[in-house]
Amino acid sequence: MLSRKELAEAQERAAEIFAEAGIALTGAERSAIEIADFGLSKLAETGLEIVVYVNTQRVAAKEIAMFPRQICPEHRHPPYDGTPGKEETFRCRTGTVYMYTEGEPTPHPHARVPADGTFTAWREIVLRPGDQYTVPPNTLHWFQAGDEGAIVSEFSTQSRDDLDIFSDPRIERATRLTDG
Amino acid sequence: MLSRKELAEAQERAAEIFAEAGIALTGAERSAIEIADFGLSKLAETGLEIVVYVNTQRVAAKEIAMFPRQICPEHRHPPYDGTPGKEETFRCRTGTVYMYTEGEPTPHPHARVPADGTFTAWREIVLRPGDQYTVPPNTLHWFQAGDEGAIVSEFSTQSRDDLDIFSDPRIERATRLTDG
Repeated sequence: MLSRKELAEAQERAAEIFAEAGIALTGAERSAIEIADFGLSKLAETGLEIVVYVNTQRVAAKEIAMFPRQICPEHRHPPYDGTPGKEETFRCRTGTVYMYTEGEPTPHPHARVPADGTFTAWREIVLRPGDQYTVPPNTLHWFQAGDEGAIVSEFSTQSRDDLDIFSDPRIERATRLTDG
Repeated sequence: MLSRKELAEAQERAAEIFAEAGIALTGAERSAIEIADFGLSKLAETGLEIVVYVNTQRVAAKEIAMFPRQICPEHRHPPYDGTPGKEETFRCRTGTVYMYTEGEPTPHPHARVPADGTFTAWREIVLRPGDQYTVPPNTLHWFQAGDEGAIVSEFSTQSRDDLDIFSDPRIERATRLTDG
């Protein structure tokens, strides 16, 4: 749950992050920045600030701002409608992103996460500006920004957030606003 | 045809354009910037400088630098392998892009093109930083940068340049290098 004040503040902060990086947004895009708290009501810890550039039946592209150490929680994109599921490439534009997927766990990973057992994939890929990584469909993944935050571009097949399967059963993908 | 010297110079110039815009590339990406002269051997007039970020069977993303008034010549992406053909979204990052597609011709278009009859689509869409336009599959389109050049992001389905159909029969999509 987010209050309207928290929503507006996060949108403004994300808009500043994009502006500082020289990423041009239209006024309509700035005022529609999606603030995802994944239903955990701890935006600074778990959340994303997302500009959806395009999302057709075939292609999606997003620009994602992450606050320092903010986490996108573990999830996968299952097959649907005869497709293998969403395929995503994450490209780091600014800052550092610690990306994790299924596979051999990295011995000393950089991420710091809540000790609640909802992070199971620990193969680490460190993304610095210009680095990118493609996550195959239906593969567990999650990521955390480094201490200075990050901007990440996402290039993918159609985005169907409603189909995402999260490892943390408390998560709701759609952000709910409090009345306040 | 491009000489190796022209290729290297265009790559260096494109790398500077991206760097000035704060777009981070890896060293490998910088040295592999695709210089397309479309076989016309007039790169300053007709050409593109392209970084291919990703190109899988399902998704492609590219960053394109355009020199002042440089033209991407008219073409379309036909159906193939049971797909409707490539779908492309062009997002202007810096500068101005004059985009043209099929439809009602714009009375006083901004573009300046060779009077060789190979430009037939004249519905103009002006893209400034933050603006974007999605070209449906199999639809004629072409574009020209404004006087200051431009950077354009392309988000699309799989890129199969070999299938592109150009209005100018002299065009060859693959760049050939001279021996010199």
